[in-house]
Amino acid sequence: MQSPFFTLAWQDDSVVMIDQRRLPGEEVYLRYRTYLGVAEAIRSMVVRGAPAIGVAGAMGAALAALSSKASDVKMFRADMEEALEVLAATRPTAVNLFWGLDKIRNILDENQSIGVEDLKQKVRREALRIGEEDLAINRRMGEIGVELIQDGDCVLTHCNAGALATAGHGTALGILYSAWQSGKRFSVYADETRPFLQGARLTAWELQKAGIPTTLICDNMAGAFMAQGKIHKVVVGADRIARNGDVANKIGTYSVAVLAHYHRIPLYVVAPTSTIDPKTPSGGEIPIEERSAEEVAQLAGARVAPAGIAIRNPAFDVTPSELVAAIVTEKGIFRSPYDFGAL
Amino acid sequence: MQSPFFTLAWQDDSVVMIDQRRLPGEEVYLRYRTYLGVAEAIRSMVVRGAPAIGVAGAMGAALAALSSKASDVKMFRADMEEALEVLAATRPTAVNLFWGLDKIRNILDENQSIGVEDLKQKVRREALRIGEEDLAINRRMGEIGVELIQDGDCVLTHCNAGALATAGHGTALGILYSAWQSGKRFSVYADETRPFLQGARLTAWELQKAGIPTTLICDNMAGAFMAQGKIHKVVVGADRIARNGDVANKIGTYSVAVLAHYHRIPLYVVAPTSTIDPKTPSGGEIPIEERSAEEVAQLAGARVAPAGIAIRNPAFDVTPSELVAAIVTEKGIFRSPYDFGAL
Repeated sequence: MQSPFFTLAWQDDSVVMIDQRRLPGEEVYLRYRTYLGVAEAIRSMVVRGAPAIGVAGAMGAALAALSSKASDVKMFRADMEEALEVLAATRPTAVNLFWGLDKIRNILDENQSIGVEDLKQKVRREALRIGEEDLAINRRMGEIGVELIQDGDCVLTHCNAGALATAGHGTALGILYSAWQSGKRFSVYADETRPFLQGARLTAWELQKAGIPTTLICDNMAGAFMAQGKIHKVVVGADRIARNGDVANKIGTYSVAVLAHYHRIPLYVVAPTSTIDPKTPSGGEIPIEERSAEEVAQLAGARVAPAGIAIRNPAFDVTPSELVAAIVTEKGIFRSPYDFGAL
Repeated sequence: MQSPFFTLAWQDDSVVMIDQRRLPGEEVYLRYRTYLGVAEAIRSMVVRGAPAIGVAGAMGAALAALSSKASDVKMFRADMEEALEVLAATRPTAVNLFWGLDKIRNILDENQSIGVEDLKQKVRREALRIGEEDLAINRRMGEIGVELIQDGDCVLTHCNAGALATAGHGTALGILYSAWQSGKRFSVYADETRPFLQGARLTAWELQKAGIPTTLICDNMAGAFMAQGKIHKVVVGADRIARNGDVANKIGTYSVAVLAHYHRIPLYVVAPTSTIDPKTPSGGEIPIEERSAEEVAQLAGARVAPAGIAIRNPAFDVTPSELVAAIVTEKGIFRSPYDFGAL
């Protein structure tokens, strides 16, 4: 899909990102010239979505490389380790971030005998390559996943696993874009996805731009529409997939998965293999980020909860693999029993 | 529970209601002197909750009676029929509204040989009696339901079925208040309940006032906390219960019920028998109100969805009786198989 917007891009040795906190009301692009700025952008969700923060992390590392004042490789490596540590500490759940930073670390490991300036350029090229590769992978997953979407389907999606969650095209929404471009005609229900409202603000916005018929609903309505037979399949992205196929994704995905299971509706997870973490045996070992209570207590600056009330705000939950009908990756469609130890 | 607030009251031949749209930020009471004002208050959710709008409807009818200029009983009856029709047209799902209006109509039917002024007073007394009876019934349900709550429980509730949804004490929250007063110690998770946020704004507010430990969560988090073993039972109210035990309640109740079923957690519905509609055979025949898309698209005046996106906003859903562990009424606790034809 040719998008009239972009999620993040490397421009003139800076990183430019659309500010996802201000969508859909305003399309504002922010420019970052330092890795600390990129780290804060990830933390505050200017950019979000597992593949996108993988790319953002790598680009942040490239900014750190370019701005290093180190005169020898050892000092350069020390500067880079500090930056990689700061970038890695921004968000704990999505494994793509660590994957992207590891790719940069590999460049450093593999090029210990070249000069600092050459190494800086290699780091920059790797960050750009990661971004280009993510876009290519999303398009490939779209081609692979097209077979899962049929004419007349009504597809539920949760959160935003679209162009805005990636370097472009998207994961779960990517297969919808590819299916639409192939001529299939279907419609989408988008969960609004509290508390950050990625569904209302981002998914509804990009599907509308793509011309795909979309209906926005509150998260708590999905079950009722399933019971009415209005939802035929569910597609979601992932923030980390364990070796056994358990999937960490945006909070509420587990509820949707149980509801889909109860109504015998298949749930498909769409994610690049960079989201699969063979080092995590099962979902129970995935760290779940708890975000600020204020994200739940306040909405658009207005307080909607009484002062002093306890609030929980886990940003993700874990869907056990038995509730996942298939996992679409750029290497093909995987089905139960999942074993990603060899990836 | 002695509440430092009240939901609605008859004062100096007017109806005074707390404006539930402005909670928890502001405690503002609005005074209505005409039935048209009360009708608008019900429609715009100044007052909501099935038992409360039953009482509000009857009090609105009493205002219509007092303001009638009719000089004979026939003209008075015509005035009253017009008012009853307007009040009945405010909200379609909660049967308590029609039940309350029918109580007023019964007074008219049973007193055709008395004068207009006497009839006005009888209507007024009936409206006040309905309010007092609702409070007494809620306290009675609380006593009956206490046995369902155990020390150490963590109880999930959805929407607001508390003092604010009734003439006082509450239905689902009423059994929590009664259990707390009996010395049982437990905690509560409150779903925020999009789009109107009755859980965040109302339930969290009144449980906090009562000193019951309460944690606010987004609707889409309930499943994850169930999977973690943190929720032991679910209590909700009802807007209409069909003869076969199917329950219409706030949108999202069905999703919670399916999730509870999957995790083998009992779901209890607490409602006065005025919520049971023996004339409705099953949930499929209950009319479900669709409210304005703006309730979903806007939050606290800020637009959170792109302009022009399609939105669904059903205010209620139907939970089939097989997902309901018990229905607590003032006449006792009912369990499957439900048959309310004799009530």
